[in-house]
Amino acid sequence: MSSVPDGGAITAPQGYRAGATTAGIKESGRPDLALLVSDETASAAALFTSNVVKAPPLVLDREHMTDHRLRAVVVNSGNANAATGARGLADARQMAAMTAARVGCGETDVFVLSTGIIGHYMPMEQVAAGIGKVEPSRGGGGDFARAIMTTDTFVKEAIERFEANGVSYVVGGCAKGAGMIHPDMATMLAFLTTDAPVTAEALDQQLRYAVDRSLNMVTVDGDTSTNDTVVLLANGAAGGRAIDAGDTRAAGALGEALRGVCTELATAIARDGEGATRLIEVTVTGGASWDEARRVARSVVRSPLLKAALSKGDPNWGRVLMAAGNAGVPFDPGGLRLWIGETLLFAKDTTTGVPESEAAKAISGDTVRIRLDLGRGGESAVAWGCDLTEEYVRFNADYVT
Amino acid sequence: MSSVPDGGAITAPQGYRAGATTAGIKESGRPDLALLVSDETASAAALFTSNVVKAPPLVLDREHMTDHRLRAVVVNSGNANAATGARGLADARQMAAMTAARVGCGETDVFVLSTGIIGHYMPMEQVAAGIGKVEPSRGGGGDFARAIMTTDTFVKEAIERFEANGVSYVVGGCAKGAGMIHPDMATMLAFLTTDAPVTAEALDQQLRYAVDRSLNMVTVDGDTSTNDTVVLLANGAAGGRAIDAGDTRAAGALGEALRGVCTELATAIARDGEGATRLIEVTVTGGASWDEARRVARSVVRSPLLKAALSKGDPNWGRVLMAAGNAGVPFDPGGLRLWIGETLLFAKDTTTGVPESEAAKAISGDTVRIRLDLGRGGESAVAWGCDLTEEYVRFNADYVT
Repeated sequence: MSSVPDGGAITAPQGYRAGATTAGIKESGRPDLALLVSDETASAAALFTSNVVKAPPLVLDREHMTDHRLRAVVVNSGNANAATGARGLADARQMAAMTAARVGCGETDVFVLSTGIIGHYMPMEQVAAGIGKVEPSRGGGGDFARAIMTTDTFVKEAIERFEANGVSYVVGGCAKGAGMIHPDMATMLAFLTTDAPVTAEALDQQLRYAVDRSLNMVTVDGDTSTNDTVVLLANGAAGGRAIDAGDTRAAGALGEALRGVCTELATAIARDGEGATRLIEVTVTGGASWDEARRVARSVVRSPLLKAALSKGDPNWGRVLMAAGNAGVPFDPGGLRLWIGETLLFAKDTTTGVPESEAAKAISGDTVRIRLDLGRGGESAVAWGCDLTEEYVRFNADYVT
Repeated sequence: MSSVPDGGAITAPQGYRAGATTAGIKESGRPDLALLVSDETASAAALFTSNVVKAPPLVLDREHMTDHRLRAVVVNSGNANAATGARGLADARQMAAMTAARVGCGETDVFVLSTGIIGHYMPMEQVAAGIGKVEPSRGGGGDFARAIMTTDTFVKEAIERFEANGVSYVVGGCAKGAGMIHPDMATMLAFLTTDAPVTAEALDQQLRYAVDRSLNMVTVDGDTSTNDTVVLLANGAAGGRAIDAGDTRAAGALGEALRGVCTELATAIARDGEGATRLIEVTVTGGASWDEARRVARSVVRSPLLKAALSKGDPNWGRVLMAAGNAGVPFDPGGLRLWIGETLLFAKDTTTGVPESEAAKAISGDTVRIRLDLGRGGESAVAWGCDLTEEYVRFNADYVT
């Protein structure tokens, strides 16, 4: 983990500029339109929501990603351009065209993202004015990170450095959270940049590796939005030989750097889950496969019963056990062991008899660590979430559009 | 739907007696031990939780169900006898033995259920005294229904009548809810009786049919307990020819009566979800299969974002759309239509532009009806749930063991 420079994370790698402006899409008057530009056309990879209902910008982006190349990313907050049909798609296409004209690149080299309320058409006049106004610069990464926020209470940025083929590279990233004070802003967006030269295949593989172990392991409330997207640009501005998929050492170094950045963004998103007071980290070891370890970890971290208990420091391990058993993984409870913090609470199919007051000590801080060993093999996975507080319900219930 | 007689629902069919007592398992001093006895050994069927962590009584019950015959059901509230390993299994076995001695039947003809806190050994002295004290009678069905309650705020009973082969039969049922004010009482138990003579195969088939369309379609918070169980006895006390699986007309009549009773119990459980102020009923039509309709309905009804919005009367159809898209069913959003109450809010891949104030009228009452048409076929399913209120979180967080 490296510290983010003043100019922001996504412009920390060479050859990127970013900026943001207030276009007037948000009623609050906060910055709501941002632009990321690579000096040269970059190799690119993206991952989209698994929700079958995808917002129009994502439909456009998939089209634009067929050649795996991008020059610019335009993003607005305040309106998700979701559930807007053919008109929404035309609006997204127009955002790409306007950005292409501003940057001086082809329309298909622009990636478009939107986050905000669902079911309202985009205010295209404001969007057009905003795209005309924004001035991307080398120090604009932080402004970009702030402009994508909706209900986030803090900016989420991270950088990592790695070496491949004797050259030093930087990976930068920023994200907005899936924390949902407001009902329609249920979107996780993450933007990643690197100055390494990477083939499309290697970029795609390493992005998936990193995201599967980080951003895909975050649960705030179990819902996947219509707009969730991760996009990664690799412009090669730092020089060196192109990292390709066959070059496992260099590709692996890139993957670990991406994983580092994405894990930092993921835990920040979980910690900033709306109303949250505690980060919950669930580690599952002893899985017969990574997939089953992952499924158990996710099932535990998303249990509303457990999340509610942890908000008041109640070490309710019965709920951990129940949630683990609901993951659809056929483990033998006789082989399961369960810890909260360092305290072993369940083993050999029964309670260890440790008083809950003992375990309660482990959840007095702002991070709760839960561990389960499935006793089935050597694979492990980690998932992150947050506690469920009355604030979550109040904010989600009281929101008025 | 028929009205439940004063003597209670599960003793409404001929040949059953029930009763309850205060054994002292619950700290509150409320009734906590109940017994159901059939005059003659009955044909029986049962369904158990899909959670891989099953409480010891369920392990014993599966053993006792191998001959598909039962005489008695003993149930306690206040302690779930879960996460208690070999000692828990021995305790459950002892409960069966004590009940068998009291009733005068074989041990394997006794079905044992427990609900309450997880991870504590059963207070067997109190249990023994309770089993010795309870006096089952023809009018004791209501007492039984009250004694199984943990956090339920009202008794859940229902009866239906049906005819088969020229004879009139009664199906009675009672249940305790999955509403979870208290953290460890996450259990749904349902008890069904009929005076029809039914073969084991037909009983099993019709119970599964009814439960899959009723109790399995209820979601309070998405968690499945270690103790969830439905048990059905058919003692044939009303006479007539045995209903077997090949006799589709008679078996179908039984199945619909069971479905009627179970649907009434299911909606009562949803309405009594802890902290709940509204029943949510989600109907999915136009499915290519019943299974996909069911998956979409369940996904919508369990969305915490939607549940929170509905608690304050916010007709947040964007969340319905999002939750439907998360069900893992590959429907085309272009063919989807979505109503809240009678108001069509989404069609042809876009918003219908109806103001949310219009739709809000449909959710001012104590029942919210949501309908989705997938446009893929002729199959449909209904799921029930409740809204998510601050009370849910408060109760679940503040509970002290």
